Amino acid sequence: MDKTLRVGIAGLGHVGADVFRLLHEHADLLSDRTHRRIVVTAVSARDKTKDRGIDLSSVTWHDDPAAMAGDDNVDLIVELMGGAEGAAFDLVKKALEAGKSVVTANKALVALRAPDLLSILENGKGAIAYEAAVAGGVPVIKGLREGLTGNEVRAVYGILNGTCNYILSEMTATGRDFEDVLKEAQAKGYAEADPSFDVDGIDTGHKTAILAGIAFGCVPDFKSVSIEGIRGITPLDIQFADELGFRIKLLGIARQTEDGIAQSVEPCLVPKNTPVANVEGPLNAVYVDGDYVEKVLFVGAGAGGRPTASAVVADIVDMACDQYLPLMGTYKPAKLKPADMGARIGSYYLRLNVLDKPGVIADVSAILRDNRVSLETVLQRGRDPGQPVQVILTTHESTENAIKAVTQQIAALDAAVEPPHVMRIEGF
Amino acid sequence: MDKTLRVGIAGLGHVGADVFRLLHEHADLLSDRTHRRIVVTAVSARDKTKDRGIDLSSVTWHDDPAAMAGDDNVDLIVELMGGAEGAAFDLVKKALEAGKSVVTANKALVALRAPDLLSILENGKGAIAYEAAVAGGVPVIKGLREGLTGNEVRAVYGILNGTCNYILSEMTATGRDFEDVLKEAQAKGYAEADPSFDVDGIDTGHKTAILAGIAFGCVPDFKSVSIEGIRGITPLDIQFADELGFRIKLLGIARQTEDGIAQSVEPCLVPKNTPVANVEGPLNAVYVDGDYVEKVLFVGAGAGGRPTASAVVADIVDMACDQYLPLMGTYKPAKLKPADMGARIGSYYLRLNVLDKPGVIADVSAILRDNRVSLETVLQRGRDPGQPVQVILTTHESTENAIKAVTQQIAALDAAVEPPHVMRIEGF
Repeated sequence: MDKTLRVGIAGLGHVGADVFRLLHEHADLLSDRTHRRIVVTAVSARDKTKDRGIDLSSVTWHDDPAAMAGDDNVDLIVELMGGAEGAAFDLVKKALEAGKSVVTANKALVALRAPDLLSILENGKGAIAYEAAVAGGVPVIKGLREGLTGNEVRAVYGILNGTCNYILSEMTATGRDFEDVLKEAQAKGYAEADPSFDVDGIDTGHKTAILAGIAFGCVPDFKSVSIEGIRGITPLDIQFADELGFRIKLLGIARQTEDGIAQSVEPCLVPKNTPVANVEGPLNAVYVDGDYVEKVLFVGAGAGGRPTASAVVADIVDMACDQYLPLMGTYKPAKLKPADMGARIGSYYLRLNVLDKPGVIADVSAILRDNRVSLETVLQRGRDPGQPVQVILTTHESTENAIKAVTQQIAALDAAVEPPHVMRIEGF
Repeated sequence: MDKTLRVGIAGLGHVGADVFRLLHEHADLLSDRTHRRIVVTAVSARDKTKDRGIDLSSVTWHDDPAAMAGDDNVDLIVELMGGAEGAAFDLVKKALEAGKSVVTANKALVALRAPDLLSILENGKGAIAYEAAVAGGVPVIKGLREGLTGNEVRAVYGILNGTCNYILSEMTATGRDFEDVLKEAQAKGYAEADPSFDVDGIDTGHKTAILAGIAFGCVPDFKSVSIEGIRGITPLDIQFADELGFRIKLLGIARQTEDGIAQSVEPCLVPKNTPVANVEGPLNAVYVDGDYVEKVLFVGAGAGGRPTASAVVADIVDMACDQYLPLMGTYKPAKLKPADMGARIGSYYLRLNVLDKPGVIADVSAILRDNRVSLETVLQRGRDPGQPVQVILTTHESTENAIKAVTQQIAALDAAVEPPHVMRIEGF
């Protein structure tokens, strides 16, 4: 048996308590797998008196998390406080500078502070692992950075936020609208009181930036991720998508294009008979498209104390076995070159709300023709002369710029009741 | 830059040639990721004159693969010859005894010779990695053995043979029968001239035994895998399964039960609206069910030169970074305790071919009652007094022994035209 690994945990919310529980419950299993004992020796959290269902009597309590970095009885820091600034960054920096390794579930930290982390790592002796930062319990960072390391990655994309996927799944299953399902999700604890971080796509953006960094050997560049959330999705869109053979999913997408890396978060139509369309509720799903392996899909619980603890412990075990890699999987992380998003190619879904009167479809068709966008499907449900009707178009491949021009010109028609609702169709 | 890793490849079929190609094409990428150059210095194959589209002028050719183990210009052996006996085992043994590590795609070797490999590894200095042995390019061994190492695994199961999945997908899509689709698959190169290794479930059995070994920290025990292939599946079964909301998939399943590990390969009904039911064609899919993470799914190309090369190179990179684990993921591999398969619990599908005459359903119902099997669905299509008709039953959970008794007793009825066709229903 090798030397005991002494772990300090900062942050004892659901994930922290479950990491503590897992390391205790599976202590023998983990020692069979690592040839070491892994023992929690110190913890830090806000409230010392709170009952978390775990026995903290034999561990050192630190009121100041940063003090754990200097605790001689701690070899490895597990950072579960969250946030890119303040206490979390401070602790990670101090730990790495003291030559201690860090395991974190903090996606904002990796997405936003990677340049700082890289420069600290260059001078310190510790390493950072962050499997739990993307897709919770699903080992997608390991899968991408190690399991698919032989590939030049063409794209990485998926369902990265369980709250949004739960809301969209419920809207699809019940026909209810966004606000209604959001309220229920909040009541059930699937969505935060302030849901904007999730439903406006920021969280998915952080994860997309991290995946892009690993996939393309770049420093994560969150600022160049084009982000749109799910507030604009209506039951009508879900119903028309269904008629056309699609489901609507919020996807984070990072794709190698001719002129750089295109990163986006947006609701997309995906074909119903694909595995990813059948990933429902709070699950996450990530595709990696590599030049040798083609498409590999990972699916599982993207959040929750126990699944996230599974990912945190996987990193702890890697550290216990002295297995760690450079932060972004490469010894030469490049600056990410963002693509011109307007030049992206794709098929699109447009839902028009227009007055049902002669000549409207002719006007729309002319706009499409003038912008060299070719139609795949036109769908009009019902007729109601002089009144607003929904007209659904799907297009063949065209540039995003062309679709934007089409959208603006249609919005300017007299017959347009509101601007068109536009979503990409992802083929898989 | 660290020391160059010199690789010897034994076997230059599709996979071997693609490994050679990948290491050459992505040499810079891999050196950015490993801080080493990875160079093929020696190869061995049957036919030196064959054109494989790769330039072998700068590598040493060995007629005898085992000679590579003693080549001072080779640090790592990639074994792609296949087979549990003979040249493959001989080379691996010699390499490990010489302190060289081995990367292999050889599932039979790991499934059948693990006890020998373990004892060689105990005395040698090398290590073995075998990501490509299960699910081709999908990094499921890494996912299970490292990414989910924090879990006590409850079950691991999935679609592990692309040939069978292709045949079942085609039968489902076209309504054609097994023999017809098999012939087409053979013509297209998706199935071997002698297809029994695939369609009779042996290949899936090898992979199931390997996954079970890793999942439960045991020496793989292929002999205790209960195996049934897909030759018995008819278009009728596929059609009835569809009506009931299911697709038919050949699954390899290893599950922890109260009295041991239940390992089986069998065609199963899986609900249509699950990701795994939508894994079509030659793709593979593996679920891991862990006590902390719940269910994680991996999907991708289970065979083919390039995807398999992706997995082989992932192992080479791990070796280049001195990252390797004990063969079955634990320092204390146990002897696998096989479960009593008859005691397994599950829901079942039974298709009866019986004469349409009064009292038959009453007889069948009595048999079910006497064996304490309760019905969920009864489906009879058409009526044709005195002639054979198909009657489909699905049951609630019962033991396999009870279902076997039911099957035998129904087969013995005067009205039975043939014995019932039985398949498990897997819930996911």
